[in-house]
Amino acid sequence: MKLAFIRSAYGSLRVHPARPGSRLSGLSRRCLPPVGATDSRVILRTVSATSSSGTRPKLTVDFRKQDYLFLLNSLYHQICMRFSQCACFVPKAGEDDDVLQINKKMAGKIGLNVTHICLTKGCSEDEIVEELLKLNDDPRVHGVFLHLPSTSLTSRVLNALKPEKDVDGVTDLNMGRLVRGDLSKGFVPPIASAVLDLLEKHDAPLEGKTVLLVGGEGPLCLALQCLTERSGMVALKSHWNSNVLQRQVMQADAMVLLDGANVDVPPSWIRPGAAIICYEHTFGLSSKSGLGYLTAAYRTHNVVRSCSRWLKEQQYQPWHLHSLKLQPLTPVPSDIEISRAQTPKPVTQLAEEIGLLPEELEAYGRNKAKVRLSLLDRLHSQPDGKYVLVAGITPTPLGEGKSTVTIGLVQAMSAHLKHNSFACLRQPSQGPTFGVKGGAAGGGYAQVIPMEEFNLHLTGDIHAITAANNLVAAAIDARMLHEATQSDKALFNRLVPSVNGVRRFSPIQISRLRRLGIFKTDPAALSMQEISTFVRLDLDPSKITWQRVVDTNDRFLRKITVGQASTEKGQIRETGFDIAVASEIMAILALADSLEDMKNRLARMVVGTSRSGQPVTAEDLGVSGALAVLMKDAIKPTLMQTLEGSPVFVHAGPFANIAHGNSSVLADKLALKLVGRDGFVVTEAGFGADIGMEKFFNIKCRASGLRPNVVVLVATVRALKMHGGGPNVSAGAPLPREYIDENLSLVAGGCRSNLKKQIQIAHLFGVPVVVALNVFKTDTQAEIDLVCQIAKECGASDAVPCHHWAQGGRGSVELAKAVDEAANRPSNFQFLYNTEMPIVEKIRTIARKVYGADDVELSPEAKSKIDYYNQQGYGSLPICMAKTHLSLSHMPEKKGAPTGFVLPIRDVRASVGAGFIYPLVGTMSTMPGLPTRPCFYDIDLDPVTEEITGLF
Amino acid sequence: MKLAFIRSAYGSLRVHPARPGSRLSGLSRRCLPPVGATDSRVILRTVSATSSSGTRPKLTVDFRKQDYLFLLNSLYHQICMRFSQCACFVPKAGEDDDVLQINKKMAGKIGLNVTHICLTKGCSEDEIVEELLKLNDDPRVHGVFLHLPSTSLTSRVLNALKPEKDVDGVTDLNMGRLVRGDLSKGFVPPIASAVLDLLEKHDAPLEGKTVLLVGGEGPLCLALQCLTERSGMVALKSHWNSNVLQRQVMQADAMVLLDGANVDVPPSWIRPGAAIICYEHTFGLSSKSGLGYLTAAYRTHNVVRSCSRWLKEQQYQPWHLHSLKLQPLTPVPSDIEISRAQTPKPVTQLAEEIGLLPEELEAYGRNKAKVRLSLLDRLHSQPDGKYVLVAGITPTPLGEGKSTVTIGLVQAMSAHLKHNSFACLRQPSQGPTFGVKGGAAGGGYAQVIPMEEFNLHLTGDIHAITAANNLVAAAIDARMLHEATQSDKALFNRLVPSVNGVRRFSPIQISRLRRLGIFKTDPAALSMQEISTFVRLDLDPSKITWQRVVDTNDRFLRKITVGQASTEKGQIRETGFDIAVASEIMAILALADSLEDMKNRLARMVVGTSRSGQPVTAEDLGVSGALAVLMKDAIKPTLMQTLEGSPVFVHAGPFANIAHGNSSVLADKLALKLVGRDGFVVTEAGFGADIGMEKFFNIKCRASGLRPNVVVLVATVRALKMHGGGPNVSAGAPLPREYIDENLSLVAGGCRSNLKKQIQIAHLFGVPVVVALNVFKTDTQAEIDLVCQIAKECGASDAVPCHHWAQGGRGSVELAKAVDEAANRPSNFQFLYNTEMPIVEKIRTIARKVYGADDVELSPEAKSKIDYYNQQGYGSLPICMAKTHLSLSHMPEKKGAPTGFVLPIRDVRASVGAGFIYPLVGTMSTMPGLPTRPCFYDIDLDPVTEEITGLF
Repeated sequence: MKLAFIRSAYGSLRVHPARPGSRLSGLSRRCLPPVGATDSRVILRTVSATSSSGTRPKLTVDFRKQDYLFLLNSLYHQICMRFSQCACFVPKAGEDDDVLQINKKMAGKIGLNVTHICLTKGCSEDEIVEELLKLNDDPRVHGVFLHLPSTSLTSRVLNALKPEKDVDGVTDLNMGRLVRGDLSKGFVPPIASAVLDLLEKHDAPLEGKTVLLVGGEGPLCLALQCLTERSGMVALKSHWNSNVLQRQVMQADAMVLLDGANVDVPPSWIRPGAAIICYEHTFGLSSKSGLGYLTAAYRTHNVVRSCSRWLKEQQYQPWHLHSLKLQPLTPVPSDIEISRAQTPKPVTQLAEEIGLLPEELEAYGRNKAKVRLSLLDRLHSQPDGKYVLVAGITPTPLGEGKSTVTIGLVQAMSAHLKHNSFACLRQPSQGPTFGVKGGAAGGGYAQVIPMEEFNLHLTGDIHAITAANNLVAAAIDARMLHEATQSDKALFNRLVPSVNGVRRFSPIQISRLRRLGIFKTDPAALSMQEISTFVRLDLDPSKITWQRVVDTNDRFLRKITVGQASTEKGQIRETGFDIAVASEIMAILALADSLEDMKNRLARMVVGTSRSGQPVTAEDLGVSGALAVLMKDAIKPTLMQTLEGSPVFVHAGPFANIAHGNSSVLADKLALKLVGRDGFVVTEAGFGADIGMEKFFNIKCRASGLRPNVVVLVATVRALKMHGGGPNVSAGAPLPREYIDENLSLVAGGCRSNLKKQIQIAHLFGVPVVVALNVFKTDTQAEIDLVCQIAKECGASDAVPCHHWAQGGRGSVELAKAVDEAANRPSNFQFLYNTEMPIVEKIRTIARKVYGADDVELSPEAKSKIDYYNQQGYGSLPICMAKTHLSLSHMPEKKGAPTGFVLPIRDVRASVGAGFIYPLVGTMSTMPGLPTRPCFYDIDLDPVTEEITGLF
Repeated sequence: MKLAFIRSAYGSLRVHPARPGSRLSGLSRRCLPPVGATDSRVILRTVSATSSSGTRPKLTVDFRKQDYLFLLNSLYHQICMRFSQCACFVPKAGEDDDVLQINKKMAGKIGLNVTHICLTKGCSEDEIVEELLKLNDDPRVHGVFLHLPSTSLTSRVLNALKPEKDVDGVTDLNMGRLVRGDLSKGFVPPIASAVLDLLEKHDAPLEGKTVLLVGGEGPLCLALQCLTERSGMVALKSHWNSNVLQRQVMQADAMVLLDGANVDVPPSWIRPGAAIICYEHTFGLSSKSGLGYLTAAYRTHNVVRSCSRWLKEQQYQPWHLHSLKLQPLTPVPSDIEISRAQTPKPVTQLAEEIGLLPEELEAYGRNKAKVRLSLLDRLHSQPDGKYVLVAGITPTPLGEGKSTVTIGLVQAMSAHLKHNSFACLRQPSQGPTFGVKGGAAGGGYAQVIPMEEFNLHLTGDIHAITAANNLVAAAIDARMLHEATQSDKALFNRLVPSVNGVRRFSPIQISRLRRLGIFKTDPAALSMQEISTFVRLDLDPSKITWQRVVDTNDRFLRKITVGQASTEKGQIRETGFDIAVASEIMAILALADSLEDMKNRLARMVVGTSRSGQPVTAEDLGVSGALAVLMKDAIKPTLMQTLEGSPVFVHAGPFANIAHGNSSVLADKLALKLVGRDGFVVTEAGFGADIGMEKFFNIKCRASGLRPNVVVLVATVRALKMHGGGPNVSAGAPLPREYIDENLSLVAGGCRSNLKKQIQIAHLFGVPVVVALNVFKTDTQAEIDLVCQIAKECGASDAVPCHHWAQGGRGSVELAKAVDEAANRPSNFQFLYNTEMPIVEKIRTIARKVYGADDVELSPEAKSKIDYYNQQGYGSLPICMAKTHLSLSHMPEKKGAPTGFVLPIRDVRASVGAGFIYPLVGTMSTMPGLPTRPCFYDIDLDPVTEEITGLF
């Protein structure tokens, strides 16, 4: 327990509570009690004596004075706000101080941390309000005692205070709650509590007794009236100059003298044994009176109550999630029509429902918001929810609906089974939205809405990646030009310029010097050799691996020549653009688990090799700080919602072949904390389970430390028939008859080959599998039953048909129940390989155990690359296979579960910042093109309604 | 006056109020009364009789029943919400209906538009709350009558209603306001008003009279007690079963029977002449009682009051802008340090202060927000504020501080002179932030904060432009490839595919057909010739003018060769990238005055020429709808604030040479409405007045229809000395002594040449000029005085030194006063040329009158381009000169006011979508490069505090 009084001299400006400007960062961690220790029951054990003052009758109440004992487990905070030496408030010197002293003492006894803010004497209403707004926003402050002169207590000042922190119960809202009788949220004014306490001690039972409130007006008098009446008393009110005062006094079992009017009440009027309680100010009170102590105790009690309420809000609890109603139509309309017909909840409402604090949210318009990573600090001791991965069998080129299963499952979990649950999705590239692919927000009645915002700029993360990626590229070429055209000396003078006569290395340059083994910090101390080593990255133009990116399907940028303007002095070279999501920075965003981790990964990225064979990193280029700055908002996951109002994180979308194809580690981590112990986070891996799931386990889970509880394996009758020997399926061409008519033998063939193999792969990692059969309208009941039966025979915990596309969450309730059950089974998660194994062995392990290959065969280039990576110290990175997703093997046409093949490794590359080695099995296109008639022909915007058409 | 009852059968689901899904669009315009007609005084002329019921004593009050007459000038809306046939609420069939009928009748009489929402019988709390939230958000609804059974009136339901619409005064907040006595915001419960009204009519004066409230509990009783006590009555309370009831009844001058308890009060108890008023329900009441009419009248009165308050908020009024305090330090710290030391107001608070409605704001995090264009509809009849342009004399390469003057002026106007005022700034390109330029958010104590957000992604507008621009580029190359490799037939089959057996043109394709003179809509009807014309854009690769863009200083992309991958089948061509802000789409964003206008301009953009010499547009490529979709958020201006909390719009930042270099028309329009009649909007034009200001007048004002009131011409002693013959000034090199020591003759020389000429240019357009001398610390008083003196001699309305950089707004107060005065002078704005003049004449007019040239000389290429543009119908576009900003002439080294030169026009180009012709005088770089040591070396992010360093 810590007791910190921040005192200041009268008349000083004001004392900031702790470190200004950094109120939120880190502090919440220190201030929060560990979960479990927050049963903040408060026991007020004692009451205080009151005393008479002036010429009024002596008090007949006289309780024994005791200590005020509270049981508390942690630190709480109260802030007192006051004027110093404000005459209108402090008629007798020192009295003001007494009031504060009592309050501070009381607060101190129970470990409250009191900050005393001194405002300047003549400060304006604006200044008081500004101060209050800061206190409102400060999560460490749980109560504010407005110890201000009554002239400053304007309606605006009182109501500027957040009602949750209004421990004196003076705001309009809290007064209204008191009057209406809702005490679960507001606060009873401490002085009213104190008076009632005294009355109870003296007159219990109060029922039927009469209390006379004399001389009072205004809200406190009313509060007292409400409270006494609610405790069964008859409350009478009178003025000092009332002509019935005597009669009323004689009736009263108790009297409360409510103002300082100097009127005598002859003791003869008073009934024997009647209690008389007096107080003078509205909120403060004379310290001479024992009532002062009791009031301070109740004020402190209110602070503790405020803090307890706040703590309770931070705890895990089932969400009160408001589900959006779905009334699915038949036939199912287009995705954009379905999306548009549903009005999403304001994202601020969704955030509140799932337990986010306002300061943890950065809204981007009405429908999406970024969530701050400080949440992880706040909830670090909260247990994680269940972690569910959605993977698929080897798909047809048409895709088998993993995203819709993911969304449908979460809709079923939240809207129908009332489990806290969260979907974590990848952000789609914008390029294909205008090419052939259309949207990626799910489909039918299992969608993220508004789908157009999901598919377009979203919150700008991919744009930030593009900017960061291309800054690296521009830095590479500009640096090569400058090195080619300047002497060592000139380069050094420019790189380490003299500013006002002083030369200094920037921190980024010092990092580079360290890596070069130069531990000097004074630029003048470098030898000519060291200067040369330092200033020349000496990049080999033929070994630059860094490409530029755009988020557009621009096939003409696949291979280009740059530097052809005369200003670039003939430094031309061949290079190319990838689609933005293929940038290593995207993979880093997906794998980073903090801002610092992201920054370090960005600095480590290797952009090429020097002529002497050394890797050159982003930090060598001096650009890593700028990259972190460009990416500082992108690291925060974006919150959206499903059609039924369940929460969705959209964050990161790395390529599923040259990268690991999974959404971000951070989104999963945040979601697991938010859903809490009994909740579910459903995340999706790209491509078939042999690729996306294998990388999810071996790369993403390794980076995050998270352990999955269940794998949902998505299958379709269509894909199973293909694996069972059905004819070729291709985009654009009509489906062959086999796929439309019932064909049980094809289905059985597919189940016993590909589905079985994919289940076995999941079992390799020790995780239970639930097969989700994404039902199409052409599927027959016999086919559906057959799939479910064989899936269970092959070891699936369960196998369930799902109808989310046509029915929304209701169509996936069975799946949700099966997942819930499987999640309660023991999971014995294990990695497939140890990263310390040699690179070739890691590749071989994946090829044999996952793909079913006999062995691997490495090209000479692959071998030499592996040698190089080992030599550079990258040998213990995990493996990210770049293989076709259309077959378990490297041959797209081999369906089912091929065996007896040798996997050829054409080349091996490394994403050092992201942290994996990626062997290439075949050629991977990293830049899609536009077809003859791209989607954009149909995309339009109505300028009046602002409705978008043509997205699907 | 319109009276619309939306009725529905009992038990029906519910009736939507008017068009669902389009509540805001357009409607606000129709519903709002014209400004000036909103003096909505309401006169309640009459009172109603009350009647006794049951066995209670007869009422002695008996007023004449009259009509309830309200004077109103417009439509208002009230929504009744109720259960239908809900037994617990309607003991006698039909009674429920009566209550509603009375309320509807009353509302109808004064022209209120009542919408009656029927909820389903068993509907849940959630459903009621959801309905209420919709009503809260609907700006057409000014009052909600919660006609619900008391079991449904839970605390959550009551408090879900926005207090502004709580015309029954039942929310906690309004109850608290009533109790605390603040009646300026809340509502007195109508029934309490009705009772008090009756009491006044019967017992006036009420002072000293006794009223007995019998049988009541809860908030309404308390409200009544407050009101009667406040009117000077003594309020007594009693229960029906009180043993002092008789004594109290006998004392009372009036009695209010507050519940339906069936208790007899013997008439003998009642004092002769005492009024007895009874009511039964909490909010509703028996229609049999005259009190019902009076209550309904007061409820209606509250609706009118709510609406009047709302209307008043919509009206022009001086803002209550909370200024952020500045305490400037000496020496002035770095820009980022100053920015970081100030905590901006939440943008939602700023928005509220300047009169934006919550639904008009789309927050992007805490510090910036997009503002919806619907604001223009809402305020269309609001008079515009004063329109102030900040331009500059011909600058040195170091810049003379137009942005800081703009921001400082607005800080002075708002924070010091308390005028409503707004700065409109350009969004800077992100590229140069990492190159040499640093930030562009102003500087010193005249900045936009947070400066790092201003300088980085902001709200993604430039990223949207990049995406849109590059989609056009990808479409061009892909189309050329597809045309080169497919027959007419194949192209047609792909461009107009058969979907489910039907072929259809998309709307974009129909537009193209129209332009080609083909008015058929059935694809099958096209002749082979027509098909060929339709499918082949036949772009001439050598005449493609569209470039790709990135928002990075990437000099190696200035000239490149694309299409070198084998997949592009040898279709290589030379092209290049510009910096994103050089995109024509940026110029369009800056000039568009609505979403529709932007869409049309995007469609008109010419990307190149066909082999037969026809212009090919974005719409020909089929991409114009997609462009509008990509740009739909970018069109909304971004709201930020200055260091002193004044509002700033940041929107669009087109190049100042190949485009017009001004911020957006829409931001200016929105700001002019927001500041209102007596306010000021200060906007900035790029480069010197000869360029930025000339384009502001001739291009931007022509597009917007706005007329400027004042030009602020920024000068520095440094630049004036240069124009007076001082030595060369260049970035990076130390300033020669002449610029540091006093030198009056150089100053005078500069004033009498360049400053004088620039003042004359502004006068050509008929606008008064105030010269703002941006004072540097090396300037002497004699120099400052001399500049101000000569400026006034040259015709400036005033000339004032400003110290905003060191002092913030306080340092620009004199300038603000001078601008205020000049804005009140008559301005006789006129364009410099008529657009119908021949292109050459327009160019010549600018060259002679603005630049001081003798004539122009056109290259053969320029001449042939002009012929081509005339032939294509672009001859009447305004002119956007692409000339150096470092001299009034085309020769950067010619300072002062050169004469006797002939302006060479090297080439002429057109931005048809943006809507101007741009003659090239010299070569313009549209892609900056990175220096040897770019800014990014110093830029870093602290991963713990998230603080950015190194931006300046």
